[in-house]
Amino acid sequence: MIKAAILGYGTVGSGVFNVIKENSELINSRAGQEIEIKHVLDLRKFPGDPVESVLTDNFEDIADDPEVKIVVEVMGGIGAAYEFTKRCLEEGKNVCTSNKELVAEHGLELMRIARENDVNYFFEASCGGGIPIIRALNDCLTADDIDQITGILNGTTNFILTEMTQNDGVSFSKVLKQAQANGFAERDPSADIDGYDPARKIAILSSIIFGSSVDYKDIYTEGIRKISAEDIKYASTMGYAVKLLAEAKKTGDGVRAYVAPFLLDQNHPLYSINGVMNAVYVHGNMLGDAVFTGAGAGSLPTASAVVADVIDAARHDGKRAYCGWRHDEKLALASNDGIKRRYLVRIYTEDQGKANSVFAPDGFLDTISIGDLEEEVAFITPELSEKDFETKEKAFGKIISRIRFY
Amino acid sequence: MIKAAILGYGTVGSGVFNVIKENSELINSRAGQEIEIKHVLDLRKFPGDPVESVLTDNFEDIADDPEVKIVVEVMGGIGAAYEFTKRCLEEGKNVCTSNKELVAEHGLELMRIARENDVNYFFEASCGGGIPIIRALNDCLTADDIDQITGILNGTTNFILTEMTQNDGVSFSKVLKQAQANGFAERDPSADIDGYDPARKIAILSSIIFGSSVDYKDIYTEGIRKISAEDIKYASTMGYAVKLLAEAKKTGDGVRAYVAPFLLDQNHPLYSINGVMNAVYVHGNMLGDAVFTGAGAGSLPTASAVVADVIDAARHDGKRAYCGWRHDEKLALASNDGIKRRYLVRIYTEDQGKANSVFAPDGFLDTISIGDLEEEVAFITPELSEKDFETKEKAFGKIISRIRFY
Repeated sequence: MIKAAILGYGTVGSGVFNVIKENSELINSRAGQEIEIKHVLDLRKFPGDPVESVLTDNFEDIADDPEVKIVVEVMGGIGAAYEFTKRCLEEGKNVCTSNKELVAEHGLELMRIARENDVNYFFEASCGGGIPIIRALNDCLTADDIDQITGILNGTTNFILTEMTQNDGVSFSKVLKQAQANGFAERDPSADIDGYDPARKIAILSSIIFGSSVDYKDIYTEGIRKISAEDIKYASTMGYAVKLLAEAKKTGDGVRAYVAPFLLDQNHPLYSINGVMNAVYVHGNMLGDAVFTGAGAGSLPTASAVVADVIDAARHDGKRAYCGWRHDEKLALASNDGIKRRYLVRIYTEDQGKANSVFAPDGFLDTISIGDLEEEVAFITPELSEKDFETKEKAFGKIISRIRFY
Repeated sequence: MIKAAILGYGTVGSGVFNVIKENSELINSRAGQEIEIKHVLDLRKFPGDPVESVLTDNFEDIADDPEVKIVVEVMGGIGAAYEFTKRCLEEGKNVCTSNKELVAEHGLELMRIARENDVNYFFEASCGGGIPIIRALNDCLTADDIDQITGILNGTTNFILTEMTQNDGVSFSKVLKQAQANGFAERDPSADIDGYDPARKIAILSSIIFGSSVDYKDIYTEGIRKISAEDIKYASTMGYAVKLLAEAKKTGDGVRAYVAPFLLDQNHPLYSINGVMNAVYVHGNMLGDAVFTGAGAGSLPTASAVVADVIDAARHDGKRAYCGWRHDEKLALASNDGIKRRYLVRIYTEDQGKANSVFAPDGFLDTISIGDLEEEVAFITPELSEKDFETKEKAFGKIISRIRFY
């Protein structure tokens, strides 16, 4: 038998408690021993809830209990969660978390502390919800040099973009309000819609595949706040989907990473990932292409990933598990300036001549018009580097919007 | 350092040799120790090939070498491969294989022998090529009761069906010949096109998720030999794709399993899996839906999966790894008779009245006509059990073809 504690009895914490109870027989057989939840930390009371008998409001009950070998940190945030995680690792306890903010911010330090104390810090649920992407990278695709990861890593923004696509003409702000009403979006939605959440996740995944820490603050991050119903209409007319992608890729110049909305054609492996689903495309030098798809969020899918960590912690009781994120140094990302792409650019009709001379001085731009948008026209640029596009955009002046083609 | 041997230097064997050489640094770091290929067994000579220095034509060189702790069996077939695997396991060596015939036929016995000798029998590459589906089930989705697996598990048939769909009107036999010419299909294609290959694979995957051995010979198996250009045309007209699915599902009556072509609508997670790609849909009671997609075959993707097994064998040197397929008994499958589905049925136009009275005595059948097929008409049945459909089909007499809707 191995004893565990849960820090936080919120959405994910109660999910973890219930998954372990519901699937106990299977879980114990897979863990190789019985897993017992000895404490659950929460300041609230839950009268009548089965958690009552193990509830505590004192973290020291857990930190000081030498019987507790596994601690599940599902409090979120980086204040108390950071202090508690550090303390538990120092006390020789394995820690399993769904806390992507904490892993992205302090993962390097926490993993060093785990190493020094001969325990494990697991964070499967921090990326891709129920998709077992971290374990796939650490334990499954081990024969490959993984040189690219491209993911739809945020369910909220994918839900918003899908709704905008399926309900032609509906605005970003209207869908956001609906998502907030349904509980698919936070009241302060900035981490999602401005792309910080997927930036944290791609930083974590990159750190695993490249070995050294990628700082999410170094990643070029553009969200979907500016995507309008008209942008979606152009995309649909061309047979493209707009998706918020988070990508990290090994190139001749080093590792490049970015989060931004992209236009994907129907053959792109992430084209048909809709609603709150997440998906991660991985390229290995031997494997070729692989895609992992699943629920990106939700109490039970997230809890399923956390409990898989708990089982792995039980399997590795007293042993260190392999984690690709194993170097102490930080990875300096390469500049994105040289990446070449085509862009869809919307401008006012009267600026068409100027657009041609700036964006295609040696040829003619293909333009796309949509019937009910008479004042404007869109065109597709030739392949331009990020740097060149930026220069030309400045030279041109006022554009309505621009989206990168993948 | 841990020493390994490879049985067979064919497509997969040479792939394994090359992957271990090419990615040695990463592989050794993930294995926790250096992996050295000490012997490669093949009766052929390979002058000038780097394998020459470790080549042997005598199996005893490997079986008798106490230094060899990991044996890669990639010979295929169930004759010598079976004898050699048994002997290696008995000699206390871990065995990693891509041999789905052998695992489906003798997996239960070989796993018992591995258990008795405290070693591991790994077979990641036996299902889904490079997709890490077996490790996902054994080591990643461990918190879940997996109650359904539905896969496109055969690249050859998926390639044929995709070609037939994308090149409107091309016949099965023409695409098969083309696939044989390209090396995508065997000269004797029966294991693929008659569905025996995916039946073996779904038997292996079912044995892992349900714990007891599923015998592939118990699985209802229907291939794609009868799928015609006209069937594909009806499917496309309706917006459906025809896919050869292998499915195992826990129901109130027990586990049901089958391999058959199905009509999938655009929202089905396997609808857009095209060409030689494989994909596996998995449903977990906590996780919900997850899909794993990747190259189903090919030297390097398959070798990538085998080498991941070799790394796992090195990580578990002297220890047993968890495998869900852990019970010694055989699983008796439930009958498929009661499964209710709609069917697309093609008949001669003159039999339309009779079709209505047999298949929809209380209503009217929706019919579908395709311009250039004047002599026939197709209709969609109401939901009927497999048993009922069979009875009605007999009562009706000659139909042109029928395909199940998923």
